[in-house]
Amino acid sequence: MPAGVAGRPNLNPGMTRLVRADRLAAELGVSGELHVKDDSGNPTHSFKDRVVAIAVEAARAFGFTTLSCSSTGNLAGAVGAAAARAGLRSCVFIPHDLEQGKVVMAAVYGGDLVAIEGTYDDVNRFCSELIGDPAGEGWGFVNVNLRPYYAEGSKTLAYEICEQLGWRLPDQLVVPIASGSQLTKIDKGLRELIALGLVEEKPYRIFGAQAAGCSPVSQAFKAGHDIIRPVRPDTIAKSLAIGNPADGPYVLDIARRTGGAVEDVTDDEVVDAIRLLARTEGIFAETAGGVTVGVTRKLLKDGLLDPEATTVVLNTGDGLKTLDAVASGSRPTAVIRPDLAAFRAAGLA
Amino acid sequence: MPAGVAGRPNLNPGMTRLVRADRLAAELGVSGELHVKDDSGNPTHSFKDRVVAIAVEAARAFGFTTLSCSSTGNLAGAVGAAAARAGLRSCVFIPHDLEQGKVVMAAVYGGDLVAIEGTYDDVNRFCSELIGDPAGEGWGFVNVNLRPYYAEGSKTLAYEICEQLGWRLPDQLVVPIASGSQLTKIDKGLRELIALGLVEEKPYRIFGAQAAGCSPVSQAFKAGHDIIRPVRPDTIAKSLAIGNPADGPYVLDIARRTGGAVEDVTDDEVVDAIRLLARTEGIFAETAGGVTVGVTRKLLKDGLLDPEATTVVLNTGDGLKTLDAVASGSRPTAVIRPDLAAFRAAGLA
Ligand SMILES: Cc1ncc(COP(=O)(O)O)c(C=O)c1O
Ligand SMILES: Cc1ncc(COP(=O)(O)O)c(C=O)c1O
Repeated sequence: MPAGVAGRPNLNPGMTRLVRADRLAAELGVSGELHVKDDSGNPTHSFKDRVVAIAVEAARAFGFTTLSCSSTGNLAGAVGAAAARAGLRSCVFIPHDLEQGKVVMAAVYGGDLVAIEGTYDDVNRFCSELIGDPAGEGWGFVNVNLRPYYAEGSKTLAYEICEQLGWRLPDQLVVPIASGSQLTKIDKGLRELIALGLVEEKPYRIFGAQAAGCSPVSQAFKAGHDIIRPVRPDTIAKSLAIGNPADGPYVLDIARRTGGAVEDVTDDEVVDAIRLLARTEGIFAETAGGVTVGVTRKLLKDGLLDPEATTVVLNTGDGLKTLDAVASGSRPTAVIRPDLAAFRAAGLA
Repeated sequence: MPAGVAGRPNLNPGMTRLVRADRLAAELGVSGELHVKDDSGNPTHSFKDRVVAIAVEAARAFGFTTLSCSSTGNLAGAVGAAAARAGLRSCVFIPHDLEQGKVVMAAVYGGDLVAIEGTYDDVNRFCSELIGDPAGEGWGFVNVNLRPYYAEGSKTLAYEICEQLGWRLPDQLVVPIASGSQLTKIDKGLRELIALGLVEEKPYRIFGAQAAGCSPVSQAFKAGHDIIRPVRPDTIAKSLAIGNPADGPYVLDIARRTGGAVEDVTDDEVVDAIRLLARTEGIFAETAGGVTVGVTRKLLKDGLLDPEATTVVLNTGDGLKTLDAVASGSRPTAVIRPDLAAFRAAGLA
């Protein structure tokens, strides 16, 4: 990267809260330290701002004039925002059936937003085609032709978690999987801190989390396979709905090498977990956060996570972007006239 | 406050980004330093987490068992979240016609949410009644009986702005007004830093921003009145829709004493300003942020803001909570099949 990075406009994501989650721990029967790394505090409210912050610098270095991506929703907003601030043109691609919050956010920064009739995997395939076509000249797809730079951004999650634990490695991490990039780079970040002597070396275990309706990595893990069989996603966790995850095999390696696992939960369990996290810690997660919290609960039940260890669960997104997941159960307790009689009649006093 | 505050569960808001907004400055014709203090990065994505963080400690100190508030939307979510994390019961009150994002967020943390058939001013009146009634015993209304503590939380905005400017006072601040509490406490925070010698004393000017559809303070300012005439709100900036603002007279004093002003913008100007901020800086503000940016533009046009000075504009909320304001204009540019021919046919190549 060229010098002067700090002086160029960037959304400056990161250093989000690491929340000590004692009330969640109590409900889950965890006696060790339980923490939630809450990446909903990033500028566009998902961890994707981290990866885009690096990619936008790479795009500048390569002289790209349009910033682009194939997205399951969060990346589109992160790219749109970063491009706007950087003064670059943007054109982002999403599946046509995303949540309203993600669509509006992907469009509001003024770049082009193209909805594709198909799944994320169709979107991604199309973007690869576009890169090879004259129409895609000068375009930096953050998660395709800029992917090596983009991916490194997720290492900051590992750096911050260790720093916020007082320069200690956690014992266990629970990380969501879409393409699997984030999980592999968190592992890389932890290994870098060990190599640099910034944390004391000790074993840590990395657990991957998927939604049952899109669980190709979890299925391969449980079956003992090295190869991922693509699936057609069907889950409310749309941000994780990648049926053919590029980094899936590396995730399997890491889960096995570190003594972790990959697990999945149903959509109902996702919704329950969103509510559990909200009710205990005041954190409103998107469906991806419901997946990690739900998988944490399941792994504890199954004895795969050690309840006495130091555990970090990632919330990588924001509940305001997936309102429909919880809307039906998140209504007013009562609608009343503004007087005490009505208040009493509603059974609230 | 009792000792040990730092050890008790709190959402730990604050230290949000101060964004140097050069692209916005260029569009507005500002040649001085223009900054946006972006409080959408707080835990529940509005500045209300700041005031609630103090109020929840006060509630503990007083032994209150239920945390409550009358809210225009953001406060309800902030109270619900903070109470959940603190392990307190909560029951919050909102007008019945709020945005979906705010209603879901107010309910998702598991406390009681009561929608009132009326305006915010009706909600607030009802809450005052409830405090005097046995039904309200043990209830801490953060912005009513805990208001003196609550209000102090807004001073952190002043502290952080000066710290982030390198321990300098800005020349001009543009602050939204609902009840007027935040604006008065920002002024107090600035005066405290001067009194403590943490910043060099110099004049600063505070400007208040309202929506035309609920502009009692702006109207009084322009008419030269000391008294605020209550209005019935009618604006998309629902978070600022307080027709009878408790701290309105103090706002008038501060605007006049510092050489500032109070101005208002129409709903269309609010939407334009949300888009302008998104397009130039990658910040997606709620309607309240549209009000401050819109008023900044208007004050510059009218020569009331100095374009060569150091100016800080507040974005106190989050665009994801007021999607409807921009949804109609934030749609995909095109919906296409995943192939290059379709891409070309859509005029995108
Ligand atoms: C909220 C959220 N969490 C996690 C992920 C997973 O990212 P990865 O593709 O790196 O596995 C995504 C990807 O879109 C996401 O949006
Ligand atoms: C986003 C936002 N900004 C500003 C305000 C104004 O607050 P105050 O009542 O302190 O003037 C509110 C109040 O609800 C708000 O929700």
